[in-house]
Parts: sequence; C-alpha cells; structure tokens
Amino acid sequence: MIDSPLNKSLRDQHAGLREGSLSAMALAEASLAAYHLRGQHDNAYMTWNGEAALAAARATDAVLAHGGDAGSLMGIPVSIKDIFAVPGLPTYAGSSRRLPKSWERAGPMVAALLEQLPSVMGKTHSVEFAFGGLGTNAHWGAPRNPWDITCHRTPGGSSSGAGVSLVGGTASLALGTDTAGSVRIPAAMTGVAGLKTTEGRWPKDQIVPLSTTLDSPGLLARRVDDLAFAFDALDAPLGRHSQRVPPCPELSDLTFGVPERYFWEDCSPGIAETVRQAIARLEAAGARLVPLDLPGTDEAYALFQQGGLAAAELAAFLRTELPGMIEVLDPNVAARVRAADDMPAWEYVRRRSVIQRLCAEASAAVAGVDAMLTPTVAITPPTLESLEPEGAYPKANMLALRNTVIGNFMGLCGLTMPVGRDAVGMPVGLQVLAGPWQDARLLAIGQSIEQCLGSGIDILGGPPSP
Amino acid sequence: MIDSPLNKSLRDQHAGLREGSLSAMALAEASLAAYHLRGQHDNAYMTWNGEAALAAARATDAVLAHGGDAGSLMGIPVSIKDIFAVPGLPTYAGSSRRLPKSWERAGPMVAALLEQLPSVMGKTHSVEFAFGGLGTNAHWGAPRNPWDITCHRTPGGSSSGAGVSLVGGTASLALGTDTAGSVRIPAAMTGVAGLKTTEGRWPKDQIVPLSTTLDSPGLLARRVDDLAFAFDALDAPLGRHSQRVPPCPELSDLTFGVPERYFWEDCSPGIAETVRQAIARLEAAGARLVPLDLPGTDEAYALFQQGGLAAAELAAFLRTELPGMIEVLDPNVAARVRAADDMPAWEYVRRRSVIQRLCAEASAAVAGVDAMLTPTVAITPPTLESLEPEGAYPKANMLALRNTVIGNFMGLCGLTMPVGRDAVGMPVGLQVLAGPWQDARLLAIGQSIEQCLGSGIDILGGPPSP
Repeated sequence: MIDSPLNKSLRDQHAGLREGSLSAMALAEASLAAYHLRGQHDNAYMTWNGEAALAAARATDAVLAHGGDAGSLMGIPVSIKDIFAVPGLPTYAGSSRRLPKSWERAGPMVAALLEQLPSVMGKTHSVEFAFGGLGTNAHWGAPRNPWDITCHRTPGGSSSGAGVSLVGGTASLALGTDTAGSVRIPAAMTGVAGLKTTEGRWPKDQIVPLSTTLDSPGLLARRVDDLAFAFDALDAPLGRHSQRVPPCPELSDLTFGVPERYFWEDCSPGIAETVRQAIARLEAAGARLVPLDLPGTDEAYALFQQGGLAAAELAAFLRTELPGMIEVLDPNVAARVRAADDMPAWEYVRRRSVIQRLCAEASAAVAGVDAMLTPTVAITPPTLESLEPEGAYPKANMLALRNTVIGNFMGLCGLTMPVGRDAVGMPVGLQVLAGPWQDARLLAIGQSIEQCLGSGIDILGGPPSP
Repeated sequence: MIDSPLNKSLRDQHAGLREGSLSAMALAEASLAAYHLRGQHDNAYMTWNGEAALAAARATDAVLAHGGDAGSLMGIPVSIKDIFAVPGLPTYAGSSRRLPKSWERAGPMVAALLEQLPSVMGKTHSVEFAFGGLGTNAHWGAPRNPWDITCHRTPGGSSSGAGVSLVGGTASLALGTDTAGSVRIPAAMTGVAGLKTTEGRWPKDQIVPLSTTLDSPGLLARRVDDLAFAFDALDAPLGRHSQRVPPCPELSDLTFGVPERYFWEDCSPGIAETVRQAIARLEAAGARLVPLDLPGTDEAYALFQQGGLAAAELAAFLRTELPGMIEVLDPNVAARVRAADDMPAWEYVRRRSVIQRLCAEASAAVAGVDAMLTPTVAITPPTLESLEPEGAYPKANMLALRNTVIGNFMGLCGLTMPVGRDAVGMPVGLQVLAGPWQDARLLAIGQSIEQCLGSGIDILGGPPSP
C-alpha cells in the first residue's frame, strides 16, 4: 500500500491540518509524488492541476496558520470529474473538443467546494458525456484499473478517473456524477466507497448534462466515513432539505432488505459469493435480514435496455448546445445517441411516466426496511481486449449498469463500499440502497456496516505497483 | 338579465345560507329552472345532475339548519368540467366514449370541493381531451355562446361548458382546466371571470391529462370577487404553499406592465380598443403603467404553433391508457395528435428546456411590476360556420390561444375579467398575469380592478333570452 497522508481518513486529515501535524502543502506534495510515480500509468486525469494546487496549498497553510478556517474540506486534495465546470480549467466532458468558455464557470456544487479551499489536483477522465458504465473513451483512452498490473481492465464509468485518482494516491475525495451507476460502478471496480445522492438534492447547474432527469452528483472516497465527512461539508450549503449525518445506528437495530433475484444473476465468479459473505457477517453481528424484491425491477431494466431517457436527453443537449459534436462522437456513444432519433416524443413521455410510477412504488417498498443490500456490479472489470469483438461492449456495458440503474430509475439514493475480491482478484462492492432523501441516514448505516466489515483499505490493502 | 339567486356574489350566497335568508334548495331549484328554460339551447352540460343535486341540497339544508358547516362552498351550485373524475358521474373528457370506471374516483381537487357539500349541478362539455381553444366538439356539438342569439358562436374552450353554465344561470362556480388558455378563453368569450392557477399549485390527479407538464386547474365565476372567495375555500386544503387572498391593494399602489406589441396584433374590431379603455380607466384611478414586453414571447408562440408539449403528452396518454380512442378522435384533435408521431424524443426534450428557460426569464421580468395587463383573447368568438372551410379551424384556434398560452409557457398565473363588448357585441376580457405562486395576490389585484371597472354583471348585464 502506498504510504501517504492521503490515505488517512478525512477526519484525521482535518484534525491534523488544524493541529499543525499536517499541512495542505504536505498533502499536495504527496499527491504530486504519487502522480509522478504512477500518473502516466493510471491515466486518471484529463487535466492535471498539481503545480497550481501546490501553490494554492501554500496560501491555504498561511490561512490555517493564522487560525483561519474556510470549511471542513480546507487543504484536502480533491479530484473533479471533467464534466463539472471549474474556473481556470478546461472542460471536455470526455469529448474530443474543449467545450465553450461558459463551461468554465463554477456551478453551485463546485462553488460550495472551492470556497472551502481544498487543493484541486485536477479534472479526471469521464466517458464521453458520461454515457457509459465501463470507463472507456475512444478519444483519450480508458484510465487503467489499478488492481490489475498485467491486463488493462476498465476502471468503471462514467466517472472513470475518479476511483483511480483515489487509489493512485493523488486525491482523498473525488467528485463524480451518477445517472445509471456512474459513481457506484467506478467506486466498486476500483475498490473505494461511493455515494449517489438522491436526484434533486444537490443542484446540477454547470455540470454537463447526460440526463437532466436522472443525473445525480456524487462523491467517491476511500471510506464510507470519508463520504459522511464530505457530505456534511457539502450538504449544508447545497442540500435541498439539508441534513447532517446522524450517529451510527447499532447493526442490531437495523433491518436490511435482501433481494432474492435479479441482482444475483449472471455475476462473474466470486462476486455474488463475496457479497453474500459480507451480508452473512452483518447478520452474525445482529442485523436482521428480510427478503425484498422491488416491484418493477424487470420493467425498469427493460426500459433501460431500450435506452431509457438519457439517449434522447443527451441528443437534445448536443443538438442544441454542441451541434458539431454529434459527428465526432466516440462510436460507442454515437450508436446510442443515433438510436434516439427513431424514438418518438410520445415514447419518451411514456417512459417518464413509467419512471415516475416506479419511483413511487419503490419508495413505498423500501419504507419497510432501513436499507437494501445487493452486489454493486455484477461483472468483474472487463479487459479492454475483451470489449473489442462486435457486440461485446454493449453487452458488458448493460451488465455493468444493471444493478445500479435500479437506484436511478427508482429514485433511491445509494452507496457502494468494497467488501472483498472476486475470483480474478478484482474488488467487489456491496451496494446499499435507501429511499429518496435518506442520504444522511444511508451514510450513517454505511458507517455501521464499515465498522463491522472494515474499510476498503483494511480489506484490500494497496494496489500493486505499476 | 336572469333574476336568480345564483347571480348574487358567493359571499352573499354564503351569508344568506348561514342567516337562513337563502337555502341550498332555493339555489338548486333556481338552477333547475334555468336549465329547463335554456338548457337545450345552451348545451353546456355533458351530464346534467340537477335532480340528484336537488335531493342533496335538501340534506345540505338540514345540516345548515342544525348549525353544521361543511365549508365555504356548502350549498353553492357548481358545475365541473367533464375531465375531472367525479364519483357517481361518467367521465367522457369530450371523447365519444365513456372512460373506464377508474375515471369516476375523485382526485384531491374534487374531493376538497365535495367535502364542502356544494350542489354539483353536472359535468360540463369539454373539447375532446381539452385539446382546443374554441370549444368545438365533433361528437357532442359546441355549447352555444349565450351572447349571440342569432348565430351559433363558439363558447371558447376547452372548458367549453363552464362559462356557459354560469351565464345560463345553472351554476355560480365552475371548475375548469387551463393548458394554453382553456379557462381564460371560455371565461373571456362568455363574459365571466376566470383564474388559471400556477402550474403545480393544485394537484392534478384524476383530471384527465392533456399536458402533464402544463395543465393547470382553474375556476370560473361571475366576478373576480367570487373567484377570490372560492380560491380561499380550496387553496387551504389543496395549495402547495397555501395562502389566503390578502386585502385588496389601492390602485394607486399598483404598477402594471403593459406590453407594447404581440398581444395587440390582429385583434378583432373593438377588442384592443375596449381593453385599452379599461387600462386607461385604471390609470385615471391612480394605477401606474409601464411598458413591459416579456422576453421570448415570439419564441414561445412559435413553439406553441409547432405543437408545444401537449400533442406528444396527449399521444403518450392515449397510447398507454386508451389505445382504442386514437382511431375515433374528433378530426381537429386527431390531426394534432398524429402530427406528434413525427416528433423525435430529443425535440420534445429540447422544447421542455426552452420552456424552463422562458419560465425563468418571465419570472424575473414580471418581478418588477405587480401584474401585466393584456387582452385575454385576440378574436371575437367565431361562428361555427366560419370554421368550416379547410384551414379555418387551426387558424382561429391558434389566434384564440395566442395571448393566453404565454401565461402557460412562461409559468405565470393569470386572471381574466370582462371589461366590455367588441364591435359585434361579444364580451371582451382583460387578462391579468402575475408571477408564479402569486395567485392569491393576483386575485386581490383583480378585485381592486373589478372595484374600479365594475363586474361582468354590471358591465354586460344578462345574455339575451333564447
């Protein structure tokens, strides 16, 4: 494991910065050192901002030395998915072209982050317009999944550089977005924790849209506890119905719904087994398990396979805002955007109303439990080579997204946390889903689970050196 | 003018019912008498419920006699547009077929009305699925505009029987809905007052949808003061951000925005002139006038002329819920539903985002004035004969809706009130538009205007006898 202050918990970094045992400079320097060690290999960043972040860290330390406090995330090294507009840094959104300057003006989420004076280490790679779950990108290449040194496996997407930036030691917190799993999949595939907020909780202005209906900002970090810490730092300024993460509940006070089907089907070897073992350990620690299959799961997945809402919504955005871009899309993205041309408007309206119904039904169904537990991703991160044959990409992409998209189409919030390794040694994620607006309580439940099972760093150690 | 207790203000009816100088029976009997006098001629009702209402009124009087009070609308004769589900009465929504039984279960708005024990005199005619502004209906005929005894002129739509029920003396309050003007147009064309609430203020469950995005429930009555009274009775149980109508402001404390263009163009003889005179009287009474043209007005109308959102949203509803209905639609409705088949989903998404932007811009633009004043409808109610030539209906329909749809596409709330007659003697409406969620204040402003100009009954008297 990389020995770095960035591996400390955010609470310990926060305390160290205030006590003087740690400095923003030391954190930024450790990030730079990690970048020089493995940045080329990992390819997490579209735009690396290390030198500028180091200079800013010096100023941050001066403020800290005078007792100034800009907020909980002051001095923390963060990476930002390159679909968030960040002042002074270009936005490509995974596309081949720099977007217009208007996409370099901070929206509310980046503004809420920046005013706390974190060290912004750079903008991480994204699948083009966030439209894909594996993390591939025909223009810029896929970041490398750090857990396999021999094969180039996908890092998960569409926040494809986010998890890699954490594991590679260049950031302690990563901003991502999740439309069908784009925070939870890269988190699970790279062995970190990830939070998808309830859609509508945090504003989305100045985040390049994939699906205006379903896009949900989110966070990735090494631990659920780090997510809870960062959530508290951001939900106060951003959250509609803002809340603080409550104290961790006792596992013996919690009831988890465990699905009997769907989420377990066609899993790669070792994934279902590892998640079942984790759930069994929670039961042994006192948690109550009840069977719970969400109504409409198959209908939701069928709708997703038909293209859901995102294809039409992305097509509308591109045709309106970036018309020249459509001709030069990544082939895997272009295929799905073109498919939307054949969808009549009434079919889109129908799909929206189905999703509204699914959300209402799921909200009622999960109300009887504290959370649901499932495998986050059904498949081991595929090698790039395995995606080359005709038809291989769409199939793997669908299967990667299958378990997470249920959270989006049903209006839930969701967490993932690493709970072990699969048969080829890649990280396995446990997905924890809760009802709409339960984000703060979900994080508290996640912390209780993490205290029982151990954090990703405890379970996985560090990645092999390149 | 018909001498009827239904012509009294709702406040006077309410007081009379409590003092014992009036009874629910007397009101219902007067409604029945009016129906027998001119019901056939007016054709306001799809389903007449007079005998049942009379029986219910007897029970209502018994409750009143014992000091019971079910709410402000107790004993008041009301008519309900036949797209609201009402227990015990069939719903056709202007179509040729009775809708399934599920459309006879009350939604929140009808429930909030019924629990106050009004006398429900019947369900009024609607344009088929509320998709048209003139009030025509190939299946059931158009209600007759009561103000022209020689020609059959349109009553305005889509709440085509609502205004006629008031003028014909069978109801003192009418429920309607407004997607592009369907409350304000029939109110203006029949010389009564109408309120379109801010979309989202009152729930729409169990109202047959035309446009899930833009449908707004509304009220029609003989006076703005009656609308204010009924609003107070309904907004407490129904309103998101519920409010009471505040005291009437002084006209000298009000600033009205008056558009310089668009709303005044191509008006039938006497309409613009009558509205300008009314505005001049308000100015003479102390109101301040400022020029105000809403940004994006032409863009909004162009989008509406292309079909807006309603065509695709209605098509989605029909295909999902009533697939057999598409083949038997009124030709004027069918043409627009079929046109939606050629609209791709991305174009619908684009239109939604344009409307979102227009709403945001309009909300900012109207924030500097108390309300905007315009003619409600640009054209005199056309004769049915004039609509027969090829192309005449779509042209007249668009022009009828042109001034009101701006309120819908820009997220405003709106009132209309009669202010005089046009060159052929038909009623002319003044439209008063205010920013989103300003419904209660808009009604107070409307009451101030009404106190200055007089109510519809003062200005127009009663309609000619058939």
